[in-house]
Amino acid sequence: MSREQRAAIGAMLGGGPKGFAPEPVETMRESFATLMAPFPVPPVRTSELTLGGRPAVLVEPEGQARPGTILYFHGGSFALGSPRTAMGLTASLVTRTGVRAFSLDYRLAPENPFPAAIEDCLAAYRSLLDSGVAAESIVFAGDSAGGGLTVTTTLAARNAGLSLPSALVAFSPGLDHTRTGESMDTKEGVDPFFTREGMAHTAGFYLGGQDPNQELAAPAVLADLTGFPPILLQVGTNELLLDDSVRLAKRARDAEVDVILDITAGVPHVFQSFIGQLDEADHALDRAALFITQRLQTP
Amino acid sequence: MSREQRAAIGAMLGGGPKGFAPEPVETMRESFATLMAPFPVPPVRTSELTLGGRPAVLVEPEGQARPGTILYFHGGSFALGSPRTAMGLTASLVTRTGVRAFSLDYRLAPENPFPAAIEDCLAAYRSLLDSGVAAESIVFAGDSAGGGLTVTTTLAARNAGLSLPSALVAFSPGLDHTRTGESMDTKEGVDPFFTREGMAHTAGFYLGGQDPNQELAAPAVLADLTGFPPILLQVGTNELLLDDSVRLAKRARDAEVDVILDITAGVPHVFQSFIGQLDEADHALDRAALFITQRLQTP
Repeated sequence: MSREQRAAIGAMLGGGPKGFAPEPVETMRESFATLMAPFPVPPVRTSELTLGGRPAVLVEPEGQARPGTILYFHGGSFALGSPRTAMGLTASLVTRTGVRAFSLDYRLAPENPFPAAIEDCLAAYRSLLDSGVAAESIVFAGDSAGGGLTVTTTLAARNAGLSLPSALVAFSPGLDHTRTGESMDTKEGVDPFFTREGMAHTAGFYLGGQDPNQELAAPAVLADLTGFPPILLQVGTNELLLDDSVRLAKRARDAEVDVILDITAGVPHVFQSFIGQLDEADHALDRAALFITQRLQTP
Repeated sequence: MSREQRAAIGAMLGGGPKGFAPEPVETMRESFATLMAPFPVPPVRTSELTLGGRPAVLVEPEGQARPGTILYFHGGSFALGSPRTAMGLTASLVTRTGVRAFSLDYRLAPENPFPAAIEDCLAAYRSLLDSGVAAESIVFAGDSAGGGLTVTTTLAARNAGLSLPSALVAFSPGLDHTRTGESMDTKEGVDPFFTREGMAHTAGFYLGGQDPNQELAAPAVLADLTGFPPILLQVGTNELLLDDSVRLAKRARDAEVDVILDITAGVPHVFQSFIGQLDEADHALDRAALFITQRLQTP
């Protein structure tokens, strides 16, 4: 069954990269919103609010919520996307765990380059803590660039002396702006979304000429993860970013941090979006939900 | 909570390796049975039978079983152990999944050196297939040496032209008799069970002078995993064998096989035995059960 589903997804995405050709950022934002609009969103209640000075969407289960909070960071290469483009993923975690989520509309590049997004995510986390939410009852989750933000926000929180969240969940995270992962080369032409050239284009927006050789820009290469909470990394093998997760997992292991490197073969970047079409998507989200449930510490 | 539990387990195991000092194999078998006897066994129904010409224990849930079959291979360095010594783990999977298990009493070294154990596991698998059990409704699971047998039996089944099981679950598998993993050195003195010397002692029983440089003796180093079913590897960081799993996960990734490398920090070899004493043990078994449930294909 699923072999056919994986092939169907591959055929749907067409032969070779197309989603993120170098274009003006406004065009890319519209294309990304259009790309993500058809993905299903499980039933949740949403409301808009402000968190740490930025817009955010509170996503709640339709029934009674269980204790705990997911702080969600959407994907989009730090230049595209919004809580809406990631709502399928966010709502999937909320419905599967019963835990509410806040999905943050952090500032985007190029208008707000590195480390603006990290600052916003840290401010949102601090705001939750300041409002009385216990750190150990919070999980960071995110996809793609937002998966990277789960890690860099935790680094920033540690550097700021804050208590850390209880776990990180990252779907196909981007964790290395030095782009030195082997899969940057071995998966070129296999990845239906990204090319090295296209990633350089958006990274140019994000870095704005800043050095990628720093832990907040390349945690898979440079970050010391000592003291980190447990990490779940889910990634497909059809991804330029595969080795970002592989290398972060090694750094976690070396730092004596619990880490699950959960690899699905033959699927693309953030394959979890394909709920209802690809068994692997639903299965991966179920595993993520169990991980969150196991790690959240609530009264 | 769990940080204290992990420390308590560490203290209980004492300072430094002790469990498997080089001794005559009969002494080691008694010590191992004594070591494993106190571990809790969740409530199941057991019955003895023969599978592929070897004794086995059928382990069933107390209530109605769900479709599917776990073929379980116990640990013990290929020289020690029995279905009884691994019954806590086997019963934990059965009660959590609702799926029956057969735990095989495969032949042990030195009386029956490599590849006798693999031959027995393959014969048991073939016997299940011959009795009409569908390959895709079978999961191989095992701990330590038995975790290694999940992989080598699958290699042997592929070589024999058999359909492969639907998934492999390996707890702290031994996957490399060349002993070239980095953790063989970096975890020396950290691992409370094993030393390089002790492992050489039992490997001498198993190999009986045969070359370890072959895929069935060192799959983490030499096996091509093409066509393998999804693999779950769970391992602690306090293990000489840590890199056996790390390297097998890389080989799976490279062969386009779904693989979850699930690492728990600060826990010893086959920490899943500590159900009820260590939250990580119960959590890991819950993740393994979800993985089995997701992968089993039954009508």
